[in-house]
Parts: sequence; C-alpha cells; structure tokens
Amino acid sequence: VKKVSIISVGNELLTGQTLDSNCAYISSRLLSVGLPVVAIFMTADEIDSIVKSLERAISDSDVVVMTGGLGPTDDDITRQALAQFLGVELELQTELLEQIKTFFAKRGTVMPQRCQTEAYIPAGARALPNKLGSAPGILAEYKGKKIVALPGVPAEMRQIFEDEVFTELQEYAKGQVTVVRKLKCFGAAEAQIAEKLGNLMERNRNPLINCTVSCGVITLTIIAQGGWQEQCEKMAEGDEKRLRGILGDLVYGSGDVSLAQVVGEKLTRQNKTLSVAESCTGGLVSKLITDVPGASRYFAQGWITYADNTKTNELGVPEELINKYGAVSEEVAQAMAKCARRKADTTFAIGISGIAGPNGGTEEKPVGLVFIALDSQAGCVQQRVFFPRGRDAIRLRAALTALNMLRMQLEV
Amino acid sequence: VKKVSIISVGNELLTGQTLDSNCAYISSRLLSVGLPVVAIFMTADEIDSIVKSLERAISDSDVVVMTGGLGPTDDDITRQALAQFLGVELELQTELLEQIKTFFAKRGTVMPQRCQTEAYIPAGARALPNKLGSAPGILAEYKGKKIVALPGVPAEMRQIFEDEVFTELQEYAKGQVTVVRKLKCFGAAEAQIAEKLGNLMERNRNPLINCTVSCGVITLTIIAQGGWQEQCEKMAEGDEKRLRGILGDLVYGSGDVSLAQVVGEKLTRQNKTLSVAESCTGGLVSKLITDVPGASRYFAQGWITYADNTKTNELGVPEELINKYGAVSEEVAQAMAKCARRKADTTFAIGISGIAGPNGGTEEKPVGLVFIALDSQAGCVQQRVFFPRGRDAIRLRAALTALNMLRMQLEV
Repeated sequence: VKKVSIISVGNELLTGQTLDSNCAYISSRLLSVGLPVVAIFMTADEIDSIVKSLERAISDSDVVVMTGGLGPTDDDITRQALAQFLGVELELQTELLEQIKTFFAKRGTVMPQRCQTEAYIPAGARALPNKLGSAPGILAEYKGKKIVALPGVPAEMRQIFEDEVFTELQEYAKGQVTVVRKLKCFGAAEAQIAEKLGNLMERNRNPLINCTVSCGVITLTIIAQGGWQEQCEKMAEGDEKRLRGILGDLVYGSGDVSLAQVVGEKLTRQNKTLSVAESCTGGLVSKLITDVPGASRYFAQGWITYADNTKTNELGVPEELINKYGAVSEEVAQAMAKCARRKADTTFAIGISGIAGPNGGTEEKPVGLVFIALDSQAGCVQQRVFFPRGRDAIRLRAALTALNMLRMQLEV
Repeated sequence: VKKVSIISVGNELLTGQTLDSNCAYISSRLLSVGLPVVAIFMTADEIDSIVKSLERAISDSDVVVMTGGLGPTDDDITRQALAQFLGVELELQTELLEQIKTFFAKRGTVMPQRCQTEAYIPAGARALPNKLGSAPGILAEYKGKKIVALPGVPAEMRQIFEDEVFTELQEYAKGQVTVVRKLKCFGAAEAQIAEKLGNLMERNRNPLINCTVSCGVITLTIIAQGGWQEQCEKMAEGDEKRLRGILGDLVYGSGDVSLAQVVGEKLTRQNKTLSVAESCTGGLVSKLITDVPGASRYFAQGWITYADNTKTNELGVPEELINKYGAVSEEVAQAMAKCARRKADTTFAIGISGIAGPNGGTEEKPVGLVFIALDSQAGCVQQRVFFPRGRDAIRLRAALTALNMLRMQLEV
C-alpha cells in the first residue's frame, strides 16, 4: 500500500497564528483514491527543519506533499530546502519567469522584483502552473518516490493540486482501494453513540469506524480497505446500513453535508419556506442557512432583533411579554417565531433568544441558556437548552440545534 | 533554550475530517512564556505511530504535549502508547475512578462502563483533573524531559492546560524570554506589504517578522528573543512603532483583535451606533459584529433581505430602483444602507448586495461582484469589489471589507 506524508511549512503554524486547512483537504482527496496519509509534520520556515521533516516524511511514505513557503517574502524558503534535500541547485526557468510576469500584467500591474525568486526550481524538478497566484508548485522525484511542493494559500494550493497533482498520484496509487463513507449525526453525545455502536468500533475491524465530535455534530467515518473497488463499496455500504439502523434519526446525512444543507434540500423538495428571527445568535442562523448555494429558494428574509425594543418595533412581539417574562424566555422566543412567520408568510419560522455571555447571566438565567422556538401551521414547538461552553460555542450550538429541530419536523 | 513539540493524535486529523485547533492554542500560550514550539506531529490512533512520534518529538525538544486519544472509545489509545514509550504498565488509580464516577453522578447519570479505562494512568505518571469531561490528562517525566497528554476536546484540553500545565511549564522555561507582538492589517495585498517592509523581513533578523494572510486580513508577527523581558519588550516595541509608521492606517489593531472588535471599540468610545442590511452575506456581517461580547452597546438590529421583494417590503428600497439597476447594484446597496439607517435610527448603516455564487453570475455582473455601501449623516460612501474565490471567501471578504470601510470612517 502506497502511503503519503504531508509537511506544512510556516512559522505561523508553530506560533499558533494560523490554523492549517490544507492538510485536511489534501488528506481527504488522497484517501478517496486509496492513498492514506500516515503522518503530518508542521515545521518552521527554516531550511534545517524543513530538510529534517523531509527525511522523516520520506522514511514513512512513498509520496510527500508539502504546502507553504513558496511565496515571495523572505520567510519563504521551501524551495531552497527542497533543493538541498534533493542535493541539487535551484535553476532559473526563464519561460516560467515570463509566465509570472504575464500573471501580473493581466492584472494591470508589474511583477514586484521579489517575485522573480518564484521562477527558480530545483534542477530536474517540474514547475506546476498556478492560475490564481504567482508562485508555481513543484513536483520532484526522489529514489522512485514523489515529492510535491504547493503554495500555502488554500485556493492556490487546491487549484494546483486538482489540475496538476491529483491524477498523477491517483495513477501512482493504482492497485489499492480505500472507500470512505461519513455519517453525520446530531442530537446525542459521543459516549451515547459509542455505547449504541458497541464493538463495531473495535480497532482491528475492517471497515474501521472512527468517531469525532465538533459542536454537537458527530461524524462517524467508515473506512473500508481491500483489493478492489466493488468489494470495498459493499463493505462500506453494509456498515452504513448497520449504523443507520442502530442510530435512526440521529443520522442527518452522509458525506460532508451540513445540517443547513440537509434542511435546505428538504425545504426545497417539500416546497416549504423559512424565515428567522434571531437575538443572541445575531445572524448566525441566517448565515448558516445562506452558506448553502440556492438558499434563496426557501429563505427570503431574516431579522436580527438584538435590542429588546426592536423585537417589539420590528417583529411586533408584545412589550408586555418582554416585561413579564424577560427577553430571554420561552414566551418571547415563541412570539419571535410566530411574528416572523406571520410577517414573512413562510411555512416555518425560527425564533431564538438566549444569553451568549460572557456577561448578562443571572442565577435563574445563566450564561449558556437559550430558548429556541419553531413555529409552523401545526403549532409552535420549543426547546430550552443549556450549553455551558463560551460565547462562540453557545451561539453555534444554539444555531445548529434550531436547524436540527427544523430537520426533525421535515422528516417524512 | 527549552523547546516544545506537539503531537496531535487522531485518525480524523489524517483523513481530513477535523481541523486541529488545539496546536494553535498550545503554541501561542507557550510562546508567550518563551517556550517555542519547534515541531508539530499529527499521527494516527495506532500505538506504533504514536510511539514513533514520541521518539521524534522527544529528540527535537524538552517538552512534548500530546492531545487526543484519551477518551472512552476503542480508538482512544494514547494512554497505552505513552505507557509503552515510557516502558511502564498502566495502573488503575482507584481514587481517580471515584472522581470519574462522581463526574457522571453530578450530571445525573451513571458512568458508562467503558469510561473505567480513563482511570488507568502509566505507572509513575500523574493524573491531571478534568473539570469539563471524564478523561483526565497525564503528566509524565522522561529522562529529565516532560511529557503531557491532554484530551482532544478543545474546552477540556484548555481547562486542564490552564489549570494544571501552564504554570509548571512556565517554571520549567525560566531563563529564556520571547516576546511576541502581532499587528493586524487590512486593505493591501501581502506582496505590497512585503515591498513596503523591505529588509525588515529578513530571516536572520531579531526580532523576526513573519507575515501571513487569511481572507484579506494580514497578520505581521514580531518575535523578539533575548536574555530578559525588558530587553525583548523594548525590541518588539521598537519594531511595532517602525511597522506602524510604514503601514499607517493599513494597521487596524494589535494582538488577536478582529476587525469587528476594533470597530466595536471605536463605536463604543465615540458613542455611535450601527445597523446592517444584508443580502448576499445573509447575516454574516451581523454575525461578525455580534461575535463581540457587549455588541448590544452599539448594535441594535439587522435585516437580512435576501429576496428582492423583502428589500422593498421590509426596508423600503424603491421597487423602481431594483427594476432599473438590478438588486446587485451600487444604487440598491446604497438604498439598503440609507433605509436601514433611517429605520433603525443609527449613526451608521451598512448595505451589502452582491453575487456570492456559484450560480447567478452574468458577464456584466459576474460571481464575486459585491457592492458595499456605508451610510451616515456625512453621506453614503460605497465600494464596488470583486473577489473571484468561491462563495465562502466572497461572503467573508465582503463582510470584512464592509467592517473595514466603517473602521476608516471611525478613525479620529
């Protein structure tokens, strides 16, 4: 089985400034063609560190994919480190230099002098054209193994990876097959799901089932390995059915689908519409809904009624209700949902009011308490939830819970 | 100089399912006390891989911090791997088992049987109490070096790190000082900023200046190293002044501050208020604004007028304007801002209309085209921007540009 290691280069990764998303992208793409990533190394913008990582990575695997450090600034030295590791010089490719100059010319500017460095490639290696930026990628061979260097800017990395690298590595991987399926769940804790699955999660099992959790969304990954595609597909499919049978409507979808996408598909298919009135989530529910292309088919409008009086003035929530129960209450969340549905004339409306913190909590209504209401012709349902984990997590968890309530109503 | 390596354990990191945020947190906290992270390893939930990573990590550094793989499911085997690396057995700590049982009891449930495994600790190592979850962390000594294992759930990792690990490692690091300052910039490309900074970004310089970019936000990190705090502070301060002098109002703040925070501080200080009317960003601008605790001081309400008719019905944008110029136009964005400001009675109002794609673009108005208007008593300013990089990036970049326009108006 051919294996891959990834090296992410950049001081910003080691000082905690930047979260690397490139590794996840590359890993999931390569896994789909049966090239598992066995190790990821993050290393500083220093020649010695990069060379050491290359030595380790190449000892673990047949393919090394590097990202970062190909740009025009002085801290970009992946190019030099790769040449040193390969034991060759950097050579100016004049044709490449012209391409880089053209890249800037097309955008109406002159190539900054420092970008000339991007036209230097280790002798014997191949430059990989970059359509979105000036720095090309690099593909080198080393003792029958392959080393790919890509820019760190995600869009540029992806374009070069897809256009120049993916097919070549797919060819290289022939003969081994991995099929990966993901099931996304919402509405139970990780330990509860693990209890339900029992020995299906044993480590030596094939397919292997992994479980991860992020803000209430639980992802189960089924990884089937074998000699040919059909066999692996069948194994993975069998497990998917098994898991769906055990977990029922805790499973909201498969693959990389989000709750907002699933809700959007159901609304579209059922020809139903949605509006949203948000307080503590401050636009997050609407943002999640409109993350989905084509959301305009079912989402026409939303209100962010952050201040108490705007709940009354904009939506028409009775002032007495707010005075009597407080803005953060079952009653006001329900009134927000009902008013939004009436004003927007939609099938469903969500109303959310809560205390996202860090301030504003009381003993009776602590930070993390959120009321979520969902109104429809069938009536107004609501949930009182409590997420004791910080402003961002409270807001996201509340927004996802609202979407999940809607999903459950849309199940047919 | 004492050094740190981090090992993140989890198949989900290698299959591309999960972005690791723990490394960034640990790195930035440790750097602040002069403990630089020199390498990060991501490895599979397999004993052999974890042990190999421990060998590499310990050869690079004096402290190894591990995260992940301490939970109750079968894929959690960091505990076993650590014991094997240390050459000791896992021992059941009965007192710890009682604590774990109490953790569940307090939440009104019984400890799932599989959580018993969390009470096993390598012989000679110390359990680190977990207040937010059931799995404790582990602190072990190895040939005068320190190895820390923490849960992968970010909130639990942070709590144990702060309460049990940080001070101990700070003590251990004594005698070396690193001062880190970050400057955040918006409104220019990375290469333009690099041109302006010239040889200030040379690699052998102390302080070292690193540059990273994410969705238009450019972060310059100044890293000063030396023998004592005062000296480093002075060096870093000198560089910060130098950079601010060169970059002027491209710099919007320092540290981990966001554009929304800076705008929020300025609005609060100047006693001004803001409302938002969004179309293509679908709630994202309001979400960014309300990410900031205390946003209610200056943000009362927002409208998401996604469908054309809601721009007219809710905000009062003249229908003729939409018919004549189209919903995505300078004129409509301006009308949205003006109507929002009038309705909400705020000092400022933002109006945004654009084409986030992937569909809906035309030759005249392609995907990525966004009109952003900012209305105030002084008049309505607007920007026509074009971000050719995919729905998520278009929306985020447009939202940040709107906040930056407001920042520029608030500069005093």
